[in-house]
Amino acid sequence: MPASPTPWGDRLLPRHPVTRDIARQLYERVAGAPIISPHGHVPARLLADDEPFTDPASLFVSADHYVTRQLHASGVRLDALSVAHGADPREVWRTLAGHAHVLAGTASAFWLRDELASVFGIEDELTPGNADEVFDRISALLRQPDYRPRSLLRRFGIRVLATTDDPLDPLAAHRVLADSTTLTERVLPTLRADAYIDPAAANFPLNAEKLLSAVGAAATFGGYLGALKDRRAYFIERGAFSVDVGVTDPATAELTAAEAESLFQHALAGTLSPAQQRLFRAHMLLQLAAMSVEDGLVLTIHAGVYRNHSASTLDQFGPDTGHDIPVSTGFTRELKPLLDRFGLEPNLHLILFTVDETAYSRELAPLAGFYPTVYIGAPWWFLDAPDAILRWRSAITETAGFYRTSGFIDDTRALLSIPARHDVSRRTDAAFLARYVAAGRMPLAMAERIISDLVDAIPAAAFKL
Amino acid sequence: MPASPTPWGDRLLPRHPVTRDIARQLYERVAGAPIISPHGHVPARLLADDEPFTDPASLFVSADHYVTRQLHASGVRLDALSVAHGADPREVWRTLAGHAHVLAGTASAFWLRDELASVFGIEDELTPGNADEVFDRISALLRQPDYRPRSLLRRFGIRVLATTDDPLDPLAAHRVLADSTTLTERVLPTLRADAYIDPAAANFPLNAEKLLSAVGAAATFGGYLGALKDRRAYFIERGAFSVDVGVTDPATAELTAAEAESLFQHALAGTLSPAQQRLFRAHMLLQLAAMSVEDGLVLTIHAGVYRNHSASTLDQFGPDTGHDIPVSTGFTRELKPLLDRFGLEPNLHLILFTVDETAYSRELAPLAGFYPTVYIGAPWWFLDAPDAILRWRSAITETAGFYRTSGFIDDTRALLSIPARHDVSRRTDAAFLARYVAAGRMPLAMAERIISDLVDAIPAAAFKL
Amino acid sequence: MPASPTPWGDRLLPRHPVTRDIARQLYERVAGAPIISPHGHVPARLLADDEPFTDPASLFVSADHYVTRQLHASGVRLDALSVAHGADPREVWRTLAGHAHVLAGTASAFWLRDELASVFGIEDELTPGNADEVFDRISALLRQPDYRPRSLLRRFGIRVLATTDDPLDPLAAHRVLADSTTLTERVLPTLRADAYIDPAAANFPLNAEKLLSAVGAAATFGGYLGALKDRRAYFIERGAFSVDVGVTDPATAELTAAEAESLFQHALAGTLSPAQQRLFRAHMLLQLAAMSVEDGLVLTIHAGVYRNHSASTLDQFGPDTGHDIPVSTGFTRELKPLLDRFGLEPNLHLILFTVDETAYSRELAPLAGFYPTVYIGAPWWFLDAPDAILRWRSAITETAGFYRTSGFIDDTRALLSIPARHDVSRRTDAAFLARYVAAGRMPLAMAERIISDLVDAIPAAAFKL
Repeated sequence: MPASPTPWGDRLLPRHPVTRDIARQLYERVAGAPIISPHGHVPARLLADDEPFTDPASLFVSADHYVTRQLHASGVRLDALSVAHGADPREVWRTLAGHAHVLAGTASAFWLRDELASVFGIEDELTPGNADEVFDRISALLRQPDYRPRSLLRRFGIRVLATTDDPLDPLAAHRVLADSTTLTERVLPTLRADAYIDPAAANFPLNAEKLLSAVGAAATFGGYLGALKDRRAYFIERGAFSVDVGVTDPATAELTAAEAESLFQHALAGTLSPAQQRLFRAHMLLQLAAMSVEDGLVLTIHAGVYRNHSASTLDQFGPDTGHDIPVSTGFTRELKPLLDRFGLEPNLHLILFTVDETAYSRELAPLAGFYPTVYIGAPWWFLDAPDAILRWRSAITETAGFYRTSGFIDDTRALLSIPARHDVSRRTDAAFLARYVAAGRMPLAMAERIISDLVDAIPAAAFKL
Repeated sequence: MPASPTPWGDRLLPRHPVTRDIARQLYERVAGAPIISPHGHVPARLLADDEPFTDPASLFVSADHYVTRQLHASGVRLDALSVAHGADPREVWRTLAGHAHVLAGTASAFWLRDELASVFGIEDELTPGNADEVFDRISALLRQPDYRPRSLLRRFGIRVLATTDDPLDPLAAHRVLADSTTLTERVLPTLRADAYIDPAAANFPLNAEKLLSAVGAAATFGGYLGALKDRRAYFIERGAFSVDVGVTDPATAELTAAEAESLFQHALAGTLSPAQQRLFRAHMLLQLAAMSVEDGLVLTIHAGVYRNHSASTLDQFGPDTGHDIPVSTGFTRELKPLLDRFGLEPNLHLILFTVDETAYSRELAPLAGFYPTVYIGAPWWFLDAPDAILRWRSAITETAGFYRTSGFIDDTRALLSIPARHDVSRRTDAAFLARYVAAGRMPLAMAERIISDLVDAIPAAAFKL
Repeated sequence: MPASPTPWGDRLLPRHPVTRDIARQLYERVAGAPIISPHGHVPARLLADDEPFTDPASLFVSADHYVTRQLHASGVRLDALSVAHGADPREVWRTLAGHAHVLAGTASAFWLRDELASVFGIEDELTPGNADEVFDRISALLRQPDYRPRSLLRRFGIRVLATTDDPLDPLAAHRVLADSTTLTERVLPTLRADAYIDPAAANFPLNAEKLLSAVGAAATFGGYLGALKDRRAYFIERGAFSVDVGVTDPATAELTAAEAESLFQHALAGTLSPAQQRLFRAHMLLQLAAMSVEDGLVLTIHAGVYRNHSASTLDQFGPDTGHDIPVSTGFTRELKPLLDRFGLEPNLHLILFTVDETAYSRELAPLAGFYPTVYIGAPWWFLDAPDAILRWRSAITETAGFYRTSGFIDDTRALLSIPARHDVSRRTDAAFLARYVAAGRMPLAMAERIISDLVDAIPAAAFKL
């Protein structure tokens, strides 16, 4: 038996020769297609400054909480993985190489392998034996101009890259990028509304006051909505096409003006009960949809995550350090107030992301299979991985087809992982479609249309690009 | 690579040659077997009148909310798909042909392809280019006597067809069919109890009053139960073998006579709180089981659907227009009161349907793997599709085997889709069994017994046919 | 087509030749490896006494509620399956043989086939035709010394076998086994805490009083915790390495000393409300973790089962008679109080078992992918079967890899089924890994390391062996 039974070029494609041939043929149609990344977390500043990456450890470990959380689970302290906390980059890199078995089988391991090969030309598996040599090779390359962020953006073929930004962000980095005479790729802001709709979020009163004062609005609920609209307009002027919000559950509610005003004043005062906080947030989510009906911004909802689960880790290392843990999530009852108001509005696009797979066939596909406003978000966070993507397609396609989905979303802070992530999606979609073609469930010509639309027409339609 | 890698005759069968051979051999044992359809929604009137179908659009689009919901989700207005609302049939048909990519991969697309080929001899994919020609060919055939409902019933080999009927329906159409000297197929009524057990249903007081007056019963809870028993007896005389009920959740409860009486009077007056409505419904569900213990009617429960989710669509187009959306559903706690009373009663058959896949391995298979009264309903509604059926078999078989299931249920209003739906079930079951045989998990002879029992002995046992 | 398309030796391995070759090669590395069974229910007394098994029916049917529940679901009365209730062993055996179709496809059928072949050399399928002959052959073998429990333990290669024991058990049988000069296998106790942490459990006040008096502790909450610690120390002296607890839901909570004392006194008096019972249990679960941080015992949690669902069956036949039915289970919110206190403690190992598959990718893998204390328990109870094991691996691996799992757990009372169960796990893991290797997702050398670690280093690490 060969040591490597599958050529790297055929990775993730199905084994049966007929199915593999179909999958390969489909994949090749989109393998080199430009990347549309309509939602993610690469900082605009990274591209505006265009400074070289400092070292392999910062790039592949410290800045990637997908990786650090797994090493942490294996007993490595988080500060020992953080160059910012004083860890030595070479030691961090050796730690990574010594934990290949821990990462084996995870999405992170697969992306890492792809990034080393595709971006740095390193075909060997990373091992303790070659860790230092690989570290040095990457370090040398990172000093080359070709490995600066903007060069990589171009090399990766990323045509549209959306960032995620605070509503009060002046978007100065985006301005630098828009004014660039050499950058043809579009780097566009996304307004992230979380901190301004959830009274249970840290510092809500402070955030709300800042928002009100930023636009000189009166401290009334009407003034608050006006301030949000004002910031949305500011973002739209700078190219934004969507508003994103993360909520523990996607409850929506419609309050009377008096109720909303009263809750808002208590929210400013920090005197809401948990149930009232939830109700206010639910009303705000409905208000965001109302604003989208007006100004056309796509509304993306990331629901069902208990953020910063480990209190002591949050205290010591801050948010986004690998312990956002999903919870059971429903949409059918939760979104009914919103959908009764706006579910048939042509101007609203609502893209729903979940980390609870049970909602795929039970709620998301049926909702998106009726409401023209509802799109099924691509597999998110822990579910952005080959098996999970195939489960997602299997769960939604028979009810909602392919055209009610968002297209692939990388949702990443890690610029270097963007091509690897999109490639996984393209390969698994090719494998999925090939299975349908091979089972006589779809003509090949239709699969060819769909595989192309999935990387272009489908995200363009969902995100109004 | 061939454009059509799988002969249409091998559709849905597995790819590996050994497994495919086994699957094909199993499938051929049942491919032409008669169809038992013990639960569905074809109107008895359609067969009693035996009028020709009017046109292809009414047949394949307007009357099929599986199709209209998907076109609606793509932005087509529902009235533009409804011949009854004045839409031109040929235009509706062209709309269908123009949305093949939207339907691609869904169960509806697969059934449509099968129906066109098997019923009308149209082998080509429907496209905008051939839409008019196909429309004309089907229209011409529909005028032939062979394409009238009763002829199709015979041609399809449907031996038993259950309809779904209001308890107060006089069953006149069933009488016409029973009295027919030429119709040998049995078309039998099913009593649908929803509107008479749930005080939250539209017009419950009115419905209850009608039921009471229909049998001249006193307006007491005892009188009400008696009236229901009376109608069950009426249905049994006309060949009914089951009672069906749809509930948002399958809660059951046992009340004292005084509690039940009090809730009933408030239900008649329309003065129950939501919690009391749920409690009364839970008690009624237990009462339905009690009646089944007495009269032997199989009790089928379709649980966990939020009916008519879009309020404005309900207002404009009525119920059953494609926006019944599932919610998370439990059975273990919910059914305990009922099962503690009747779970071991030999005369009770309780068939449980869900649209929440999570209940398969967690609750349904364990319950049916212990209680002789409990049967696992076939995949229902959105889950009646090839991948979903395989997920269902995988989730339940290792715990409950094959003999605790209902047999396939088409649950459809669309007479023409019945053979296609049963064929999908037979093919996927053959594929599933072939996988077990090929993995050494089951002798071939056992798989041969099971594939035959699945279309005959198993539904006959579950539904007491 | 051959009647038996797969040699028995290749059972459960994948079909495609390349993938099968890899899987076979991986499987062969561990096919004969010693068995570590760190959690199960074989009675220590069985091995201490080492008496011959009495008859095939008691061995394979009466004592195995996996089998009896399925026969019961098919309409066989439980007492007709129970030799202890006077059923004739030969008749029970004939009943089993007559229900092969009922069991077909279930895990029990597969284990039975393997046990008959591997332990008794019976290669034929059990049928009504050969039932008597097989009964006689097994009966004859059971009288041989080689078929006594200790001989089988050795023949099976079981190096470590953990039992499950009441905290007040004097562990006399374990002492006999430890003192044996011929038994080299380790049979070690596990403290099962359920009855002493849940005031809703039958006889809690009585159990608590017994525990207090067993160690002469004062009837205070502090005294109670001290008594538990005392018994843990007793178990540790006798080789215990873990404490097990089964809970309907894994809620945890931290109370003040005064609150805990008050709830404890009411628990002793039997005067807690259901909500207070749950709160006390939640606090006790957190206290068990606190004790594990001190004394190092691994804490295993089996969550989400409604025990003894059928009240009348419980009355007549007692617990563990096949009607423990799962319910929806969450961990993220439930364990937060515990994990905020102890989630980063190096001395705590917390192994989480569930029968709700939805928690795999949603909660267990994300928790185990961050907290070094959290391990994902192997598929439990209904989910200990080939398809279910593959679903489990698929759901967890992309997020948490292989090294955050417990290793395989047979969790069985049936000594004879232990090798069959571990073999299924080894085969399905080989199949899973082979799929990843064949898809280019993992080097073969890594898969070779992992398949070996899964039967040795991984359970040894999780259970601190």
